Amino acid sequence: MTRKFLAAMIALTLAAPAQADVLIDNVEGLTIGEDGTIQRFTALVIDDDGKVAQILSAKDKKPQTDYREDGEGAVMIPGLVDAHAHVMGIGIGALTLDLSDTTSLEEALDKIRRFAAENEARPWILGRGWNQEKWGLGRFPTAAELDRAVSDRPVYLQRVDGHAGWANSLAMQAAGIDANTKSPAGGRVERIPGSQAPAGVFVDAAEALMMRAIPAPRPNERDLAFAEAQKVLHSFGITAVADMGTSIEDWQAFRRAGDTGALTLRIMAYAAGPDQMELIAGARPSPWLYDDKLRLNGVKIYLDGALGSRGAWLKRPYADDPGNTGLPLTGPAKLRNILVRAAQGNFQPAIHAIGTAANEDALNAIAELAESFPGDRRWRIEHAQIVDPVDLPKFGQHGIIASMQPVHQTSDRVMAEARLGADRLDGAYAWNTILGLGGRLAFGSDAPVESPDPFAGLAAAVTRMDAAGEPFGGWRAQDRVNREQALAGFTSEAAYAGFAEGRFGRLLPGERADFVLIDRDPMLASPGELRATKVLETWVGGRKVYDAD
Amino acid sequence: MTRKFLAAMIALTLAAPAQADVLIDNVEGLTIGEDGTIQRFTALVIDDDGKVAQILSAKDKKPQTDYREDGEGAVMIPGLVDAHAHVMGIGIGALTLDLSDTTSLEEALDKIRRFAAENEARPWILGRGWNQEKWGLGRFPTAAELDRAVSDRPVYLQRVDGHAGWANSLAMQAAGIDANTKSPAGGRVERIPGSQAPAGVFVDAAEALMMRAIPAPRPNERDLAFAEAQKVLHSFGITAVADMGTSIEDWQAFRRAGDTGALTLRIMAYAAGPDQMELIAGARPSPWLYDDKLRLNGVKIYLDGALGSRGAWLKRPYADDPGNTGLPLTGPAKLRNILVRAAQGNFQPAIHAIGTAANEDALNAIAELAESFPGDRRWRIEHAQIVDPVDLPKFGQHGIIASMQPVHQTSDRVMAEARLGADRLDGAYAWNTILGLGGRLAFGSDAPVESPDPFAGLAAAVTRMDAAGEPFGGWRAQDRVNREQALAGFTSEAAYAGFAEGRFGRLLPGERADFVLIDRDPMLASPGELRATKVLETWVGGRKVYDAD
Repeated sequence: MTRKFLAAMIALTLAAPAQADVLIDNVEGLTIGEDGTIQRFTALVIDDDGKVAQILSAKDKKPQTDYREDGEGAVMIPGLVDAHAHVMGIGIGALTLDLSDTTSLEEALDKIRRFAAENEARPWILGRGWNQEKWGLGRFPTAAELDRAVSDRPVYLQRVDGHAGWANSLAMQAAGIDANTKSPAGGRVERIPGSQAPAGVFVDAAEALMMRAIPAPRPNERDLAFAEAQKVLHSFGITAVADMGTSIEDWQAFRRAGDTGALTLRIMAYAAGPDQMELIAGARPSPWLYDDKLRLNGVKIYLDGALGSRGAWLKRPYADDPGNTGLPLTGPAKLRNILVRAAQGNFQPAIHAIGTAANEDALNAIAELAESFPGDRRWRIEHAQIVDPVDLPKFGQHGIIASMQPVHQTSDRVMAEARLGADRLDGAYAWNTILGLGGRLAFGSDAPVESPDPFAGLAAAVTRMDAAGEPFGGWRAQDRVNREQALAGFTSEAAYAGFAEGRFGRLLPGERADFVLIDRDPMLASPGELRATKVLETWVGGRKVYDAD
Repeated sequence: MTRKFLAAMIALTLAAPAQADVLIDNVEGLTIGEDGTIQRFTALVIDDDGKVAQILSAKDKKPQTDYREDGEGAVMIPGLVDAHAHVMGIGIGALTLDLSDTTSLEEALDKIRRFAAENEARPWILGRGWNQEKWGLGRFPTAAELDRAVSDRPVYLQRVDGHAGWANSLAMQAAGIDANTKSPAGGRVERIPGSQAPAGVFVDAAEALMMRAIPAPRPNERDLAFAEAQKVLHSFGITAVADMGTSIEDWQAFRRAGDTGALTLRIMAYAAGPDQMELIAGARPSPWLYDDKLRLNGVKIYLDGALGSRGAWLKRPYADDPGNTGLPLTGPAKLRNILVRAAQGNFQPAIHAIGTAANEDALNAIAELAESFPGDRRWRIEHAQIVDPVDLPKFGQHGIIASMQPVHQTSDRVMAEARLGADRLDGAYAWNTILGLGGRLAFGSDAPVESPDPFAGLAAAVTRMDAAGEPFGGWRAQDRVNREQALAGFTSEAAYAGFAEGRFGRLLPGERADFVLIDRDPMLASPGELRATKVLETWVGGRKVYDAD
């Protein structure tokens, strides 16, 4: 090698935008280790590719590195992985007006007026969270009242429970709603007393009259929403998510971020149905793109609805609605067709199943398919909320992953007791039972349905108590998991559920340096303290993406 | 810098998959140079990034490089850029059965049988090119005859002119066609003599009865078709194309190739309408992706139809159809709406305009828009075939690019004379006139409508004679261009028309090393010899992508 050639190569290396080695020192680090138990360390070295080069304990000699950062004694854990969320839903939610903290109509109108002024470019003002009971109004608000806040653009605001919406006059005009508009079956158009004129509030099925007039988000709104979603998730310490129900529009927004270097969240995408799956990825899952930041893994399939609205498909009727067992949204033959189509292309199916009948059919369908499509398939059942105890052992077969959301259990328990009755709860949110039977657990939030905060999820997972500490000792406490299992569910196991093990989810050499600095030790904090954990910094691929200061 | 650090950097450099410098020596090289005229060279150096590092003349000292290739005296020209083609159409065409060389029904049936046997996995057998006149049949072929060749799958084969299609019995069954099926307006279902039973041939509008039964290509078929299109184009020396009418399905196939390292063609994409444009790219054109191999530049807009079918929109009626002036496919208000929507996002519009009225409206719309949207917009008019001479000077304003296809002129001239009459041809395929008035010319093929062969295009451009040398001396020979202009139209100007100047289109330092080795000098060969140029090798980004051996 000539001296000149050597010099040229060094120049080339210096010119390249490679990161140099970084040592992050003086941390109380912990990760799920190679053996599946907690491994502790005091320093971490990040290599040029943003991967973990080494983790060091106090007695190890520190290597020479180009940069050194002092962790100031903070606790370092792997970046949290949310195994079930709706990324664009989080972002779009974050961009809309939130009225849930308003305590009077006048306060709400002020907030609406301010939001409209701060968002001049938006053609529609959209929001949610109002509650006329909390306002002490004793009646629904009206379009005329809303016109006082905003009269230059259409406005549509959903009630806190999503079961009613409040429009201004321009919004009703845009939707073509007037005195001649009839209330649809299952819904009600509120009227001005003593007249047929619409008053401005649309209840249940009547909401659809308004919804169809609201324009789909523009591409730049999608980009803004995605940027917002990344910010929100990183602020909670989340570095990766499984996006459940990715549309081509969502995917293109993720790629735009990737193409322009703005993608900081790792996304394991599950397409919104088999057609979107093929449109997005073609005949096979996509490769890992953008340094392990994006992959189309598989397809989300809705087998049934939700428990609250009695859409979950049960083996026996609802305790509080004896004629009703719910319904499959995807019938058995169609489910198997979709599963075959997915399996032929090595796509991973993620089957939404809430009720006992839905979980039974999902488990049976997987057992049938597993014969024709052997190998490492990682069949996922999403939610797996209410399982007939006789079906639970099937989670231990065929490597099935139960992708569950601990906070749903604490939010739903009273409702679940009403829907099912006390004697049919043995397979409800049965985390520990499923683990004990050889199933694998991945944990998530279902954000924006719940907050994406994984520390609330960790606390719920180990206590089965809600933020108020109810019920004391935990609801059906035998299905709590231990702290290690909870952390694995939100890190290594959530990564495994998306074929990402070895890429991220643990702080071990060769994995991406995705980590969070927090203010307390999740293995030692009391459950209440764990829930109140403060995220100080979030890092993805060796770069800081969130700083609480 | 420590010695250890230096060593680590060198190790890193050696481990990186960078290409080393390559010298390609002993060529007769030529390119459009910095000053727009032909620049000659005898050797070319390719750098680590696959870009041109240097071009050398005989008297220059050869630099030290890691590799050296002997060009063996071949002529080297820049990779050819096709400014108007339909990439997936080329690929899908290449995968279907071509019957245009068959001279009898029996020969055709043999070929169909063989093709079906070689393509067992295809659920439908599709093809084109048959001509019962050439077969000496004196009548249309029948479904029963086609069943003799293939009876296990549906078959549908279009006539050479695309105005009729021939189906077998399974295809008619799949389309639900039987004795009760009526001929639609503007079309005819051929019947078995003396009966109402369909005979197997569907004329003009009746083709739609069959077309709707043919399944859309599956993703893996799209990937195969795209791979085939790249192969075909590289075999003609083409290294870059403007893809005119990219759908989201096309785009995803391009990206799949890019994501897996299989993208070797440079694609400047123009979306199939404004909705596809936003779905593909969002609010702005995409960045250049995969080392300048893919970008969504803008949007294709069909202002009118074609001259042959009298769909081109004319100011005065067709000479051979006095009541008809054709029609705009996109009305003036809608055209301006789309142009505004595109211009607001800095998307580049490419307006298909064939007839005099269409070209006038396109030119006027651009003039109106150019006031509100100044700057370097590169408004494109595709085809610009028949322009009223009073409108021609407008091509010299607002930097308008006329994107024209030389071979269309030689294929169309007899038909154009019939449609317009001899006295209305002054602005027909007016290449040289447009150049002289200050317009810019980009040349393409419109493949698969014509062959993608750019040497046929170059020969047509400089002669206005067809492959048979007709008409001698050239049709309206004043609108020939010179060889330099023709080569620029297929290289540097076609790149400029897609905002790619400085990236590819010339063999100058800093541009991508895209080149073709050919067996003769296009500046010296006679027009007949130019047309018969043999492509020896095609290189993209410093890598060989085609070798005639």
